[in-house]
Amino acid sequence: MPCSIITLTTDFGLKDPCVAEMKAVILATSPKASIVDITHEVEKFNVKMGAYVLAAASTCFPKGTIHVAVVDPGVGTKRQPIVLQTEKSFFVGPDNGLLALAARNTGTIKQIRKIANKELMLPKVSNTFHGRDIFAPVAAHLANGKRMEEFGPKLKRILVPTFGEVVKREGMFVGEVIHVDAFGNIITNLGDKELESARGNGTVDMELGNRRLKLKLCKAYGEVEGRNGLVLIGSHGFLEIAINQGNAAEVFAANVGDEVTLHHSRSHVQQSRHVKLH
Amino acid sequence: MPCSIITLTTDFGLKDPCVAEMKAVILATSPKASIVDITHEVEKFNVKMGAYVLAAASTCFPKGTIHVAVVDPGVGTKRQPIVLQTEKSFFVGPDNGLLALAARNTGTIKQIRKIANKELMLPKVSNTFHGRDIFAPVAAHLANGKRMEEFGPKLKRILVPTFGEVVKREGMFVGEVIHVDAFGNIITNLGDKELESARGNGTVDMELGNRRLKLKLCKAYGEVEGRNGLVLIGSHGFLEIAINQGNAAEVFAANVGDEVTLHHSRSHVQQSRHVKLH
Amino acid sequence: MPCSIITLTTDFGLKDPCVAEMKAVILATSPKASIVDITHEVEKFNVKMGAYVLAAASTCFPKGTIHVAVVDPGVGTKRQPIVLQTEKSFFVGPDNGLLALAARNTGTIKQIRKIANKELMLPKVSNTFHGRDIFAPVAAHLANGKRMEEFGPKLKRILVPTFGEVVKREGMFVGEVIHVDAFGNIITNLGDKELESARGNGTVDMELGNRRLKLKLCKAYGEVEGRNGLVLIGSHGFLEIAINQGNAAEVFAANVGDEVTLHHSRSHVQQSRHVKLH
Repeated sequence: MPCSIITLTTDFGLKDPCVAEMKAVILATSPKASIVDITHEVEKFNVKMGAYVLAAASTCFPKGTIHVAVVDPGVGTKRQPIVLQTEKSFFVGPDNGLLALAARNTGTIKQIRKIANKELMLPKVSNTFHGRDIFAPVAAHLANGKRMEEFGPKLKRILVPTFGEVVKREGMFVGEVIHVDAFGNIITNLGDKELESARGNGTVDMELGNRRLKLKLCKAYGEVEGRNGLVLIGSHGFLEIAINQGNAAEVFAANVGDEVTLHHSRSHVQQSRHVKLH
Repeated sequence: MPCSIITLTTDFGLKDPCVAEMKAVILATSPKASIVDITHEVEKFNVKMGAYVLAAASTCFPKGTIHVAVVDPGVGTKRQPIVLQTEKSFFVGPDNGLLALAARNTGTIKQIRKIANKELMLPKVSNTFHGRDIFAPVAAHLANGKRMEEFGPKLKRILVPTFGEVVKREGMFVGEVIHVDAFGNIITNLGDKELESARGNGTVDMELGNRRLKLKLCKAYGEVEGRNGLVLIGSHGFLEIAINQGNAAEVFAANVGDEVTLHHSRSHVQQSRHVKLH
Repeated sequence: MPCSIITLTTDFGLKDPCVAEMKAVILATSPKASIVDITHEVEKFNVKMGAYVLAAASTCFPKGTIHVAVVDPGVGTKRQPIVLQTEKSFFVGPDNGLLALAARNTGTIKQIRKIANKELMLPKVSNTFHGRDIFAPVAAHLANGKRMEEFGPKLKRILVPTFGEVVKREGMFVGEVIHVDAFGNIITNLGDKELESARGNGTVDMELGNRRLKLKLCKAYGEVEGRNGLVLIGSHGFLEIAINQGNAAEVFAANVGDEVTLHHSRSHVQQSRHVKLH
């Protein structure tokens, strides 16, 4: 029997009735489901941001949690509505890349189904609000114990978003900014492994967009005095550029998608040697 | 035994303690109530917007749901606190027009009561926060099974807001903008019936405020290429003016209350004939 | 057996995954806990605002409620993570002043514990997100009935924030603005007692920052006509400066921390006599 936590991740915002309509539909079918909002403040149509937030939050939920996500610029067109099961979780939403990262983070994918069974949708399905008419009732039926095969035919693969992978260029790791949080912390797709080769004497030498930064490597924001910049491995395991009690994204004019290059501490040392020799 | 879903619709916003205070009062009296936020982002004092959002969301909730709504510029003055029961739902709030549309959408009104029984309010009732002191405890008592007649004397009618009804002028349907959602979609009070007579070759010819628009009639936002305008019947059955992946309200400078006139396709055809004759 | 309501008060905002991660951790350990958001819109790092909102809301919750609060600029540094029990409630968060006002409002403090038992935290504790890694699991364990002494050693005192106390200067009460709510109402730390000596003929004579104001003393916002200013005792017992259906903080350019001086009605009467004599 699946667990009855259902999470919601959308770009609907909170001033319109949409989110409540989805909850109403869920509770009408599965009255004991425990609904948790991940966020409804994904930037409109920003599938990549939705994918990041869902991937970050979904790993914390217990086994059997059902995640519904709707950032869906193609609603009503040919993109497929899908439900997929990983070792740990279920995901329901459009097949536009939104679910892929989170699925990968919660164990191997066990099966993917196209949602096709009209009996498990609302009686009247609009072309503009599949969140309410398809995804919410599917999640509720999953919470009630419906099996995957009842939703529709098997699919072999899902669309994977074109998130920047970390690459090596002239021996240096090059990643990108994947999220700017509400504090202005700049979260990259670089991790512990890439950082390893780049730290020199507790300082990280990097390029962020067009800026060259040398920032202290810390374990906590409060380790630097005043409003100074720092680098740390954040709570999701990613390299983060921050300013103690300040807004790093504003100060460094950083945006999602900006390139981040880690300079090697060794090349750094050689450079300074070179300078000394002259 | 009534269902124990209680919804909240207010203009309180989410940064202040007010919403949590209402929930605390509800859970103190009815610990098993399932509380669902419809929205707390109604524009301050905008009873009409509150009425629209509540009406849209309330139809999706199961029978027996208790809806509490507080957009209440007259709190503490002579406007009455009321509770009313329709075939499908209960509504609790001020008698200022906020509840009328939603009540109408959830079946005929069975009874209306003025809330007068002080034993079903908080011991100390402030003049500035009836949401916490009167409406929240009344909703909790309803969830616990208290009967309507225990709250106070019968009322014969409720105040109905002066929402623009659709009128016919020179043979054309004239409605108005009733909501602009977070995506910038412009939602009108015109429906399928009015649209019927106005579509010519898949295009809708209309005036929005002072602008003349000819937009493609679609079934989904993604049916037009790029950031083009379109018209569709939205998920609540209302005619909606939208821009694919764009913000129609900004582009067309539309606001709630703007007049929307549907031009007949026939008169349109006649006009073009006239032009041909010269 | 403690009650299983757990409230959350943070400065995390709602667009990031943080709040959902805390809820996930709570539900993983205590699946039946009923989680209520107080607010996640505390101004970033503003411990004082967090303390005010928590203090206001927490008094409404039933006995046994567990309040988690995280406004925590010093996360990962030497400030202590604590759990404390008052006559009515439990509080979990950083020892930086955030919990003190709310604790005082919910009865005398029975005991304070430093959170030190690593078995009651997440297996891996980050230095940047104690909300998820320490405070959420501690709250869930409290909801499951864990006793206070299991969390860590006793502490004798907690840090009390330097909130302005009301003082008397030249015979007049001087307080300060402690909150501006979403309607723009200006909430002060002055109460009924201080107001007593300052009201002359239903009018309150006061200084707010550098402005001299004479405002009608009301019981409800709607008691004045149009968009006029007024003073009332708000729903938490504090003197509030408001504008009927308007934004007082904008009109009077008021901010949290501004000084508020109540002028005595007697000195006021003498002044006007003086004027009459000439």
